[in-house]
Amino acid sequence: MSETKNIMEYETVELDEQEKAVVIIDQTKLPGRTEIIRLKSAQEIWNAIYLLQVRGAPAIGVAAAFGIYVLADAVETDDYDAFLTEFTKQKEYLDSARPTAVNLSWALGRMENVVLENRGKSVAEIKELLKKESIGIKEEDIWVCRTIGEYGLSLVKPGDGILTHCNAGQLATSKYGTATAPIYLGQERGYHFRVFADETRPLLQGARLTSYELHSAGVDVTLICDNMSATVMKNGWVNAVFVGCDRVAANGDTANKIGTSVVATVAKRYNVPVYICAPTSTIDMNTATGADIHIEQRPAEEVTEMWYKERMAPEGVKVFNPAFDVTDNDLIAGIVTEYGIARAPYTESLQEIFRKKEAAKAAKQK
Amino acid sequence: MSETKNIMEYETVELDEQEKAVVIIDQTKLPGRTEIIRLKSAQEIWNAIYLLQVRGAPAIGVAAAFGIYVLADAVETDDYDAFLTEFTKQKEYLDSARPTAVNLSWALGRMENVVLENRGKSVAEIKELLKKESIGIKEEDIWVCRTIGEYGLSLVKPGDGILTHCNAGQLATSKYGTATAPIYLGQERGYHFRVFADETRPLLQGARLTSYELHSAGVDVTLICDNMSATVMKNGWVNAVFVGCDRVAANGDTANKIGTSVVATVAKRYNVPVYICAPTSTIDMNTATGADIHIEQRPAEEVTEMWYKERMAPEGVKVFNPAFDVTDNDLIAGIVTEYGIARAPYTESLQEIFRKKEAAKAAKQK
Repeated sequence: MSETKNIMEYETVELDEQEKAVVIIDQTKLPGRTEIIRLKSAQEIWNAIYLLQVRGAPAIGVAAAFGIYVLADAVETDDYDAFLTEFTKQKEYLDSARPTAVNLSWALGRMENVVLENRGKSVAEIKELLKKESIGIKEEDIWVCRTIGEYGLSLVKPGDGILTHCNAGQLATSKYGTATAPIYLGQERGYHFRVFADETRPLLQGARLTSYELHSAGVDVTLICDNMSATVMKNGWVNAVFVGCDRVAANGDTANKIGTSVVATVAKRYNVPVYICAPTSTIDMNTATGADIHIEQRPAEEVTEMWYKERMAPEGVKVFNPAFDVTDNDLIAGIVTEYGIARAPYTESLQEIFRKKEAAKAAKQK
Repeated sequence: MSETKNIMEYETVELDEQEKAVVIIDQTKLPGRTEIIRLKSAQEIWNAIYLLQVRGAPAIGVAAAFGIYVLADAVETDDYDAFLTEFTKQKEYLDSARPTAVNLSWALGRMENVVLENRGKSVAEIKELLKKESIGIKEEDIWVCRTIGEYGLSLVKPGDGILTHCNAGQLATSKYGTATAPIYLGQERGYHFRVFADETRPLLQGARLTSYELHSAGVDVTLICDNMSATVMKNGWVNAVFVGCDRVAANGDTANKIGTSVVATVAKRYNVPVYICAPTSTIDMNTATGADIHIEQRPAEEVTEMWYKERMAPEGVKVFNPAFDVTDNDLIAGIVTEYGIARAPYTESLQEIFRKKEAAKAAKQK
């Protein structure tokens, strides 16, 4: 079943409680078509994750949580052990869709704990608790993004120019995105930002996803090639850079999509502050510096032929295609988390962020 | 007529004196096929320039000079006035192929002067002088590039890593290119450079042309996306950047393909010197600074759909697509010309270059 809608009328991942379906935007069809698909069977849910119809670590986690709930709810038994056996089977199946995506197994593990910790309750009660947990995972994701957005918004003013790289947008999360969260909150409040989206070679997430979702939301967005950042900054069009991240080291060095450190270097020359939008889940206090972050190398074909009508580079030419780069902490003006904004020196300020997180957790448990 | 050859066995533009044909590599077929075409009729020559089968200002100039010679040689008359009439007609036709390319009308103008200045001579003699002039234009281009290559080569050492952006290569000139000239000369002398070629969005001249021609020549070349320059420099793989230019201002500010100033900014951070390879014909002492250089804006479709299997950005999204940027003179370690290497302060050193050029011209005329 599919229908076509404007992206902003929908969320990236939704649970249809009546129809018992996971509802997602098929991201493999973007930007050509905005197609909403409803996933009900284990095969459909697995395929959606495997085929990147839903992508972005937080969004995958939410889709998996909704998915395992939908599958568990369909198990027709009142016997706990029979239910647990079927639940475990389905969970392991979904977990195999993208074995390297941390949020997938993390979300499925949270759901499994609900079943294991409620052995005394009826299957009907456990199904209700599973629904609640899956919705909670999504709500938490939305809260994290929205809170990052509020902190980020405090760093800019109406009418500002904002540049972003890759897609740390709504399409990678349940809502708001991380780097785009200040932009969406500003849009709600009439801030009229002028946004520049780097197309982000080689996979063009900026062109295909970021410019698409911002344009759909009515944001004033201009697409540029990655090599145009100096021109837009020299022209005085950019007041701040907001980007997401894949891993932040304890000293603030940040791994993010390839090209981020190029943007940050150019921004430094033109006195434009660079802000990393980082849920605390992406800050790894066990990684001392950026030098300790392993950078994934990807296939040459992404550069030489993917997306193209014909091969755009000679056969046999060597290609270097790192998926990420590390932006040194001296190029970063602030790291924006759901527990506030860390500033240099990051070794201390990031520890303070985690103290706040622990305190909030403790207060909630009281 | 066409045949397939390795690019390095051929020159970008050649005159076949026996067959009376302009012989070029069809650059619209690169990098998929190396197809050599022979142009004989006015229509064929005009098309080759119009369709960018031959491109790059110096190469266009040489092709036009050979072209007008071939057409003039075919004029069957002994009468000077009849010859001049036909020559002028053909010259104006070729000149209309790309009216904005300066070298096209410059080369045709030089050829026309040969006809005008030799009214007393026989048509057969004039045809011989036209051939000589066209070959002279090509030889001059080769000398300029080779001399730039020698000066450039003095700035690096065997085994060095060199990064280049766009295509200021053999394919844009008669031979050697400008930015690639030190690389080719080094290759002849066993320098074993490791070259990194930026793919150069949006038109991918780096992927399609530079990585192609260097790879064909046996140079150790690695193709990267434009946003990977910081990574290769941080890794210590680049000892110098060589790029061409479209116009150098009197203070050394340099307009070149979009992204050059990004590379230069990143290079500054990693202490990698940036050298501009500039024939004196591209140094414009009447343009005071980079701020006075007009930057051409190009169609959005180059970014949103050109080269792609399908549209890669949403319909209606704004696109900013400047063809060039200006690299400020403080980012430039040297400007390499056929009369030596200019160093900061450029306002003085570039004047010195032109004094040397005038002195060389005067010495030659004696």
